[in-house]
Amino acid sequence: MTDTIISSATKEVVIGFDRPFVMIGERINPTGRKLLAAEMKEGNFDRVIADALAQVEAGAQMLDVNAGIPLADEPALLAKAIELVQSVTDVPLSIDSSIVEALEAGCAVYQGKPLINSVTGEDEQMERVLPLVKKYGAAVVAISNDETGISEDPDVRFEVARKIVNRAADHGIPSSDVVVDPLVMPIGAVGQAGQQVFRLLRRLQTELKVNTTCGASNVSFGLPNRNVITGTFLAMAIANGMTSAIMSPLHPEVKAAVKAADVLAGHDQDCGAWIAENREGGSAADGAAAGGAPRRRGGRRARVEGA
Amino acid sequence: MTDTIISSATKEVVIGFDRPFVMIGERINPTGRKLLAAEMKEGNFDRVIADALAQVEAGAQMLDVNAGIPLADEPALLAKAIELVQSVTDVPLSIDSSIVEALEAGCAVYQGKPLINSVTGEDEQMERVLPLVKKYGAAVVAISNDETGISEDPDVRFEVARKIVNRAADHGIPSSDVVVDPLVMPIGAVGQAGQQVFRLLRRLQTELKVNTTCGASNVSFGLPNRNVITGTFLAMAIANGMTSAIMSPLHPEVKAAVKAADVLAGHDQDCGAWIAENREGGSAADGAAAGGAPRRRGGRRARVEGA
Repeated sequence: MTDTIISSATKEVVIGFDRPFVMIGERINPTGRKLLAAEMKEGNFDRVIADALAQVEAGAQMLDVNAGIPLADEPALLAKAIELVQSVTDVPLSIDSSIVEALEAGCAVYQGKPLINSVTGEDEQMERVLPLVKKYGAAVVAISNDETGISEDPDVRFEVARKIVNRAADHGIPSSDVVVDPLVMPIGAVGQAGQQVFRLLRRLQTELKVNTTCGASNVSFGLPNRNVITGTFLAMAIANGMTSAIMSPLHPEVKAAVKAADVLAGHDQDCGAWIAENREGGSAADGAAAGGAPRRRGGRRARVEGA
Repeated sequence: MTDTIISSATKEVVIGFDRPFVMIGERINPTGRKLLAAEMKEGNFDRVIADALAQVEAGAQMLDVNAGIPLADEPALLAKAIELVQSVTDVPLSIDSSIVEALEAGCAVYQGKPLINSVTGEDEQMERVLPLVKKYGAAVVAISNDETGISEDPDVRFEVARKIVNRAADHGIPSSDVVVDPLVMPIGAVGQAGQQVFRLLRRLQTELKVNTTCGASNVSFGLPNRNVITGTFLAMAIANGMTSAIMSPLHPEVKAAVKAADVLAGHDQDCGAWIAENREGGSAADGAAAGGAPRRRGGRRARVEGA
């Protein structure tokens, strides 16, 4: 199976099909966070550090770091944020920008093997980002859109992903260092967004054999009770082979769905992580509420005994 | 696509691939419920009626009715329970017993087209249950085990399901009236139970093209916080094509996961049911907590605009 290794100076994280899902914390991102954007622009990174610590505490195995603030010196801000985050946590980082100079500035200060986020299937972008990936020995997020935009046909998006993987190989980057983002649209706007992504994930796993990630919270944009939608989406995506996501481990419904999906995908050995995390608060009471014993339903006497 | 129609005297429910998931309430079952068992044995069905009303109120589109009490007259109890439940609700029922005489007694008093739960792939059982299904024009739950037990190999279970579908056809029962149960084992005992079922569900949908159901709560037996495991399992099963389950709509985590999965599978037109159910309590607050606006992450400027 395909393992994608990302590291900090002292810690390695492996993204892979037979492994626990990798939660990449999404919070360090000024988009839509006016206060954070203003503070970062002024050189105040207190909130960045607090967000880093809180997400790692909540279980994020990696953190995404983005400094995309209009009219700011994004390369300098991103490099500064990465240095500071690496000074307070040991989890590997995803260096997130649409500006190649910012990606380069981030890579230059990064200790370890980063995940560069991202490259699209646009020719010009590939020819600028992929040499950077090679130069720094990084892994890269490949987004399945190109000059023609984002297709609603998952098979077209699959071909864009394949194009990026092939182009990466031309630059000496193995497919195990390409993590494809199938592009998750808001389900409230595109009713087939879920089915599109699930189909694409299955093809990416079985045919291209690459690891995958996505910006998970997009799926629930505009809907009420959106954390349940996001968490349920992640579970369904994991059932179709997704191996990581940029998401918030701070929302309990989202994190619980990911951890339960790990159990159900057979990626939590002996349910050890689940039991450790849920041992207190609800175990006995919940067992009783749900009936305690497994049900003997008609014709099913062999069910549990057969286990 | 395959539609399975179940009905009461006045109401039809359709189980199908492009339709909202059908929740079949599991509560009316004395297994593991000593008080209910004792009351039913004494002819007191107050709790049966209360359970029926509560589950329908919580959104169950169908109810499973089981009267499996040791040393009791199960055919008489099951018939009585069905008559009473049909007198207070109009949802179609699943008549649940491992005793063929009880299934027959239940069918004899049932008004509408019931779901008979269940037949296995054991020859003797098929030859006793399938004529009953034909006689009453019912649909039937087909459990994918046979004389050799429950295989851990999903492909063996698939062949058992195919055998039952073929045998049903010999009795004049169309495959659209066979709802296959892939058999869900406790994930705490069988670590690959989830993956086995997901693989089997995909084959049942794409190759045998039959609707599916299962006793969902078995999956979380013995684990803490089991309703999250059960709900997440249902979402992952829906992502792989499952179309109904015998489950509890009374547990909020379980029901929410099913309804969110309907949204994500594209089976909740314009997210109408989700928005109606979640409009109050959490909508605005939750939107703010999650950042409100969709994120512009690096290289993703086309993401939401493209929707």
